[in-house]
Amino acid sequence: MAFTFQINDDIKFTRNEVFLKKAEALKPTINTMRVKPISIIELTNDNGKLNGIGTRVVGEINDLNQIFLKRDDKVILDFGDHYVGRFSIKLSHHGSPQDSPLTLRVKYAEVAAELAQESSEYDGWLSKSWIQEEFYHYDELPAVLTKSRRYAFRYVELKVIDTSPKWSVSFSEPELEAQTSADFNEKVELPLGDQQLQSIFDVSVKTLRDCMQDVFEDGPKRDRRLWLGDLRLQALANYATFNNTELVKRCLYLFAAMTAEDGRIVANVFTSPQNIPDDTFLFDYSLFFISTLSDYLVNSEDEEVLGDLLPVAKVQMDIALKSVNELGKFSDQEDYPVFVDWSNDFNKETSGQAIMIYVLKQFIRLLEKSGENSENYQRILNKMLVYTKEKLFDQEQGFFVSGQDREINISSQVWLVLAGVLNVNENAKLMKKMVAELFPVRGIATPYMYHHIAEALFISGLRDEAVDFMKQYWGQMITLGADTYWEAFEPENVNYSPYGSPIVSSYCHAWGCTPAYLIKKYLL
Amino acid sequence: MAFTFQINDDIKFTRNEVFLKKAEALKPTINTMRVKPISIIELTNDNGKLNGIGTRVVGEINDLNQIFLKRDDKVILDFGDHYVGRFSIKLSHHGSPQDSPLTLRVKYAEVAAELAQESSEYDGWLSKSWIQEEFYHYDELPAVLTKSRRYAFRYVELKVIDTSPKWSVSFSEPELEAQTSADFNEKVELPLGDQQLQSIFDVSVKTLRDCMQDVFEDGPKRDRRLWLGDLRLQALANYATFNNTELVKRCLYLFAAMTAEDGRIVANVFTSPQNIPDDTFLFDYSLFFISTLSDYLVNSEDEEVLGDLLPVAKVQMDIALKSVNELGKFSDQEDYPVFVDWSNDFNKETSGQAIMIYVLKQFIRLLEKSGENSENYQRILNKMLVYTKEKLFDQEQGFFVSGQDREINISSQVWLVLAGVLNVNENAKLMKKMVAELFPVRGIATPYMYHHIAEALFISGLRDEAVDFMKQYWGQMITLGADTYWEAFEPENVNYSPYGSPIVSSYCHAWGCTPAYLIKKYLL
Repeated sequence: MAFTFQINDDIKFTRNEVFLKKAEALKPTINTMRVKPISIIELTNDNGKLNGIGTRVVGEINDLNQIFLKRDDKVILDFGDHYVGRFSIKLSHHGSPQDSPLTLRVKYAEVAAELAQESSEYDGWLSKSWIQEEFYHYDELPAVLTKSRRYAFRYVELKVIDTSPKWSVSFSEPELEAQTSADFNEKVELPLGDQQLQSIFDVSVKTLRDCMQDVFEDGPKRDRRLWLGDLRLQALANYATFNNTELVKRCLYLFAAMTAEDGRIVANVFTSPQNIPDDTFLFDYSLFFISTLSDYLVNSEDEEVLGDLLPVAKVQMDIALKSVNELGKFSDQEDYPVFVDWSNDFNKETSGQAIMIYVLKQFIRLLEKSGENSENYQRILNKMLVYTKEKLFDQEQGFFVSGQDREINISSQVWLVLAGVLNVNENAKLMKKMVAELFPVRGIATPYMYHHIAEALFISGLRDEAVDFMKQYWGQMITLGADTYWEAFEPENVNYSPYGSPIVSSYCHAWGCTPAYLIKKYLL
Repeated sequence: MAFTFQINDDIKFTRNEVFLKKAEALKPTINTMRVKPISIIELTNDNGKLNGIGTRVVGEINDLNQIFLKRDDKVILDFGDHYVGRFSIKLSHHGSPQDSPLTLRVKYAEVAAELAQESSEYDGWLSKSWIQEEFYHYDELPAVLTKSRRYAFRYVELKVIDTSPKWSVSFSEPELEAQTSADFNEKVELPLGDQQLQSIFDVSVKTLRDCMQDVFEDGPKRDRRLWLGDLRLQALANYATFNNTELVKRCLYLFAAMTAEDGRIVANVFTSPQNIPDDTFLFDYSLFFISTLSDYLVNSEDEEVLGDLLPVAKVQMDIALKSVNELGKFSDQEDYPVFVDWSNDFNKETSGQAIMIYVLKQFIRLLEKSGENSENYQRILNKMLVYTKEKLFDQEQGFFVSGQDREINISSQVWLVLAGVLNVNENAKLMKKMVAELFPVRGIATPYMYHHIAEALFISGLRDEAVDFMKQYWGQMITLGADTYWEAFEPENVNYSPYGSPIVSSYCHAWGCTPAYLIKKYLL
């Protein structure tokens, strides 16, 4: 997440210190691993790669210290894979005495395309502070660029802004200290027998690993914080791989501890330098607290969590139900919008209706699990189901419709399948029709929405279509050079960046990590 | 110094550890003082100031923390005077939670004109690393920009590269920790009764103070090291003010300790991270080791220094004399050039002849002081004097000439006056004629050469002309905004920069600090 932002700086927040303490106690150990670059590369033109930028090896890493650089010279190191961590390197001077400081620019890049951009040319709305670029002065060489700020990268470009006409600089001992709260060594191997699916799975695991830090971050390059929408998907992928349930639990407590005074859970929280809720609210993200809690309890028997967090879940549901009328119809509220996807080019009302039903069902199961009365919620659910089937399904066209203009869009069909409104045969029929008439997907850039489409296909028994769909989406990212899945990718417009430049795009983004979950749940 | 550079990286150097130990033992204490800015300013167009850039107060420093800055906003702090030191400031965030790092650019400027330049536009040969500009990232606010690198500045510009659309940054507690090995409190007041001369004196003392660090630096902004040509003049100004003889002694030992294997003293040395000689050799700079030693012994009875360093001085003289032929004529050598001044637009042979005579006289007095035989040197001196008077003075034109084309230039006259080749009346006649026919000075940009012209006028008894000359040169720098004297200034071309941009020019440069010496010696 990042594309949308709200400013609600008049809102007051609660602070449940008991929950915060529990979250604190669940703080994960950050594992580290030292990684050396594998080669010295340069950029090439390559139409098969993102933005037409490929790479070519031009030197052995062992020969790095034999390259003497002066003003405007540069060298690009390739670490061979995506990592999150801190870079370090030794700097030495050659020639006449060092009669000036060294000025060094260091760029960190997740994909090669970033290195083809000039930072000064970026003028989008998203903060320039996310550009992975540092300037260093060294008054005295030799010196060590000791552990840099934490960056997310595969490539490091070292550019000498200047030495002096009398001397040059060389580099040695490049290294990164990679970090994750997941396991570095855990190798999740599946008997897939399909190389492409295996790759799609592996990159998914890598994406998840690099996003698992102090919390489940949405993206280690940018945003670097806990979003509820991303958390829900990360948690699912996590159960299928690392199965670090403690980290999910920590994140649930963080959200539950810092709600708005009216009870709503925020869309994201910050955890450093201290725990702070962001002033952003999304209808479906708040509701997904219930889903994430529900999924957690499926994967981890935990009475304490259920007891602590069910009341918080109930508040979310009760607030959400204010958007549902007597007939069982959900209406989108401007000040508490339903997200569904970045795109605002489709009507989201029926998707919101479906998400309400999806979560309401999980909520009722939670109530039952804790022995509480769910009758009232069951009655509302039934009303919503009736309304959905009677008013939102267009018999003639064979699709669910959304909004006053009765728009037919992919999201409505997908979410109503996920919500289990139809039976197995109806789902299959609907999804086949969707594939036949509404595919290929257009105008959707998020793996988040693509995930829900893929899962709806699997649920409806369209296994082959789902696998094709995954290969065309996640598989194509890999073909284009992805070591981890991207925040945004449009197959019909492969170079699309939501910010107009790759240098602020996030190329390791949590909501892209779900293939591990999908493959494990539906293909094994 | 800085304008010329040589690369002689094949030269081997000696290392006299005894001398280096003595130099180490004389390492000065660095005094510090905390200074607060006096106001918030902005740049104005002002034709009376350097490069047409003036300043205007736009805010009280106490209101600084009420200014909230976002992308591209900036604020300029004025410390009210030139200082050398480390800047610090507190940074706070305002608005929604800090959902991105802060990227801050900090520029340090000795003169306002520097702030009107874009660093990216500088492409001169001098290292870009001298540009006083830093980029900082702050992942978490509040934060403190703790003591920056050492800079030379009066102004600090804080420019926000970016916050995010959701929050802004403010600054508080700006401070600099000024440093010098001179005394901060020593106030050198003279009963001059001439406000302009008093200002010229005061700025001279300030320039010297800011250049006095671990050694006598040539410029605290740029180069930041010990040059022999600058040292000679700094030492003279120092005797007239702070009278820190220990620091001069330290510098003499540093030069004496690290000569080339053939015995020549280098033009400059580095002292950090360790003591290293630069591979640059200038004929007159090596010789001025003798002058600096001679001046030191005039101001400080020190048998140890004389005993240690006379042999080193003798080597310089003996090498220099290889450039003097049987007739007593000096010839400039390409690989060991006579500097005299940056400008290469005049013939320097007669100036070199004069400098030889000037230093030879001092050397003979040193020999006599230590009871050594000086006959041989006396004989050469006489030959040089005869040659100078008979061959280099053009009776018809009434000027000394230089080179094959018998060029008449200011430097030849000045240096032969300083060398004491003529008697008092002849000096006065020559200088009057020079003022009448060769003034105003053209094409000379260094206070170094201007100093020698001024002193020649004083020596010749042209006191009024000398005072006028000083007011037109050093006085005009003050009018243009100087808090300390500049590395380069051409009265006929006030905005001249030897590097094409003020951002790498040094506006506190040791060789400009001599008015304190001249005033004290010739006007009191």
